[in-house]
Amino acid sequence: MLRGFMASGVNCGLKEGKKDLGIMLSESPAKVAAVFTKNKFQAAPVIVSKKRVTKGEAWGIVVNSGNANAATGEQGIRDAEIMTEKLANLGGFTPDKVLVASTGVIGVPLPMGKITRGIEMAYKKVRPDGFEDFAEAILTTDTKIKMENAVFTVDGIEVNILGIAKGAGMIEPNMATMLAFILTDAVINIEALRDALQRAVDASFNRISVDGCQSTNDSVFIFANGKAGNREIKDGQLFEVFLTSLMKVTHSLAMQILKDGEGVRTVFSVEVERATDSDEALKIARRVANSNLVKTAIYGKDPNFGRILAAAGSIDSSLDPEKVELYIDDEPVFKNGAPVRFNPSKVFQRDFVRIKLVLNTGSAHSIFYGADLTEEYVKINAHYTT
Amino acid sequence: MLRGFMASGVNCGLKEGKKDLGIMLSESPAKVAAVFTKNKFQAAPVIVSKKRVTKGEAWGIVVNSGNANAATGEQGIRDAEIMTEKLANLGGFTPDKVLVASTGVIGVPLPMGKITRGIEMAYKKVRPDGFEDFAEAILTTDTKIKMENAVFTVDGIEVNILGIAKGAGMIEPNMATMLAFILTDAVINIEALRDALQRAVDASFNRISVDGCQSTNDSVFIFANGKAGNREIKDGQLFEVFLTSLMKVTHSLAMQILKDGEGVRTVFSVEVERATDSDEALKIARRVANSNLVKTAIYGKDPNFGRILAAAGSIDSSLDPEKVELYIDDEPVFKNGAPVRFNPSKVFQRDFVRIKLVLNTGSAHSIFYGADLTEEYVKINAHYTT
Repeated sequence: MLRGFMASGVNCGLKEGKKDLGIMLSESPAKVAAVFTKNKFQAAPVIVSKKRVTKGEAWGIVVNSGNANAATGEQGIRDAEIMTEKLANLGGFTPDKVLVASTGVIGVPLPMGKITRGIEMAYKKVRPDGFEDFAEAILTTDTKIKMENAVFTVDGIEVNILGIAKGAGMIEPNMATMLAFILTDAVINIEALRDALQRAVDASFNRISVDGCQSTNDSVFIFANGKAGNREIKDGQLFEVFLTSLMKVTHSLAMQILKDGEGVRTVFSVEVERATDSDEALKIARRVANSNLVKTAIYGKDPNFGRILAAAGSIDSSLDPEKVELYIDDEPVFKNGAPVRFNPSKVFQRDFVRIKLVLNTGSAHSIFYGADLTEEYVKINAHYTT
Repeated sequence: MLRGFMASGVNCGLKEGKKDLGIMLSESPAKVAAVFTKNKFQAAPVIVSKKRVTKGEAWGIVVNSGNANAATGEQGIRDAEIMTEKLANLGGFTPDKVLVASTGVIGVPLPMGKITRGIEMAYKKVRPDGFEDFAEAILTTDTKIKMENAVFTVDGIEVNILGIAKGAGMIEPNMATMLAFILTDAVINIEALRDALQRAVDASFNRISVDGCQSTNDSVFIFANGKAGNREIKDGQLFEVFLTSLMKVTHSLAMQILKDGEGVRTVFSVEVERATDSDEALKIARRVANSNLVKTAIYGKDPNFGRILAAAGSIDSSLDPEKVELYIDDEPVFKNGAPVRFNPSKVFQRDFVRIKLVLNTGSAHSIFYGADLTEEYVKINAHYTT
């Protein structure tokens, strides 16, 4: 059981009848690390939190959904700061040890009256079993909450990791409208914490795409409050054990985000194997995963494998059409520069579709995960301001 | 009136009840230049025609729709060659002076019996007014034929250009499932012809995107048979006059392709101005034009301008959020790092939407054209093998 963290989630009026503001706090200042969107337009809460995270310590975070506080200028920065000041005042912290995150519509100023009243309400409700409320309060077009935990032991002492995330649309590497908050009671060195987070994010949230669109607000935070009292995690075997558990949590959250993507029916993986280098393999995998024609073919369960080849071939790479082998759900469909007769009923029929391209030009490999494109995605994004 | 070219279009059974095979011939060998897809997977007809075009002379071309003859291996190459041999035999040409193009589904062998009978039928029907039949025979999911012409004079002699194209889905630079055939009776130097075609393609077909997907078959051919008898076009003012007329034709065809894109309701332009360099400006314009979130916002007439900023900001560039100005349909919506109050009824309401990003970091500019993303696009591409 995760020690020393509390959370809550309330409705403050940003969204009709749904929780839209959450607070997560540690009993004592926690070590903190984070990874943020690489978008040039960074939302105000990203700008504010990014600066504070460099100090490596924080009490907690306040998060709202329904409004991204992005492209809101100086006022937006000030509003994000006020959110942290409000929470700091209530808890008796210094504001620079409180973080902030937002998600929702871009370019609209935050209604600060509702927000500050919401922070007051939420602060009163923080409790050790408030994580589901928090998980609910951060959702946008998500249909369900996203949580995962892991437990491991250090010299017989139980160490816990809990991850909470939101996703939905605009999910693309480096990263996009996804927020994730990972809490651990581990005693861990700050450098090791930063390193582990970056590696876990690269292998999970940076490998999924719902629509190829990058967001202004993506942030992944990890808080480590040391309440487990274990021998400090720094490097070697102990670090590997921590990283493995962290990756279990981030991979699970990433898959939950993909499956609950806007309008998503089918999730798929694109493995690129025996490539010249892993960068090239990743570029090809990502291009295939983001191709609207591949995405619609998977939605329609149409074994139109030529679209996969066309997408892979559109990247400038060492790919040689004569050497490429293509497998869909383990069925070979293309080899030696020509199609292989395959049974269409064995392809694109599963809930999780596997695309594998073997380039036969080297020994590097990579994987990327995508989701199909449906009428529902278009409906959600055309007819609602999200 | 264009001199010395003939064409025809027939149904040979690749598609039900619709023309699917066309022939275009010149009365005498024409100078020829072409630009082909940069996809690593090049269709068999692209491989065959690309080699022959380097010689700079051809009698004409045979084109089929309904099957792309792509990812079809050695057999595909042989089939493409047989198509040219069949036409060469009928006309008494050498096969290496006959070109070939195909469009349609990828990875399925051509039914050569139907094709060769179709070439016989179509050859019997070639006539100087057969261009509309030809234009019809090359269509796939296009809903209308695409033609444009231009006339200019050299020393009082009338010179004609006629362009015919097909597009629909998979339209993306460098280029994608688009075929264009441009015929001119101009007397023109072969180097000038190649140069003019490349420039015209870069400014037109390489500036449009329906779905960001690149095709295996894209080809733009230009045939110049010299029947106008004008003073040879080589360089200087005469070249400029030719280029201007050619660009009029290619721009019009590109816009016709975009407007008739799969499921397209609204076409839009993305202008990026005052950028550091034109490459950067083009990258940003193209990214915005290809963003599924921007495309669905335009479809839904939802003035969610944050999506435009997020797409522009996702490119690694010199863009500075504080300096960017964003205009939609001439309304300023974002300036000095903050939103500008605008009238939503003036934004995204027209048939042709104009997005303008002024970066204020330099003096370069670029333009790119996109189309909205609708449920209809998803339907077409999910439920029909195209």
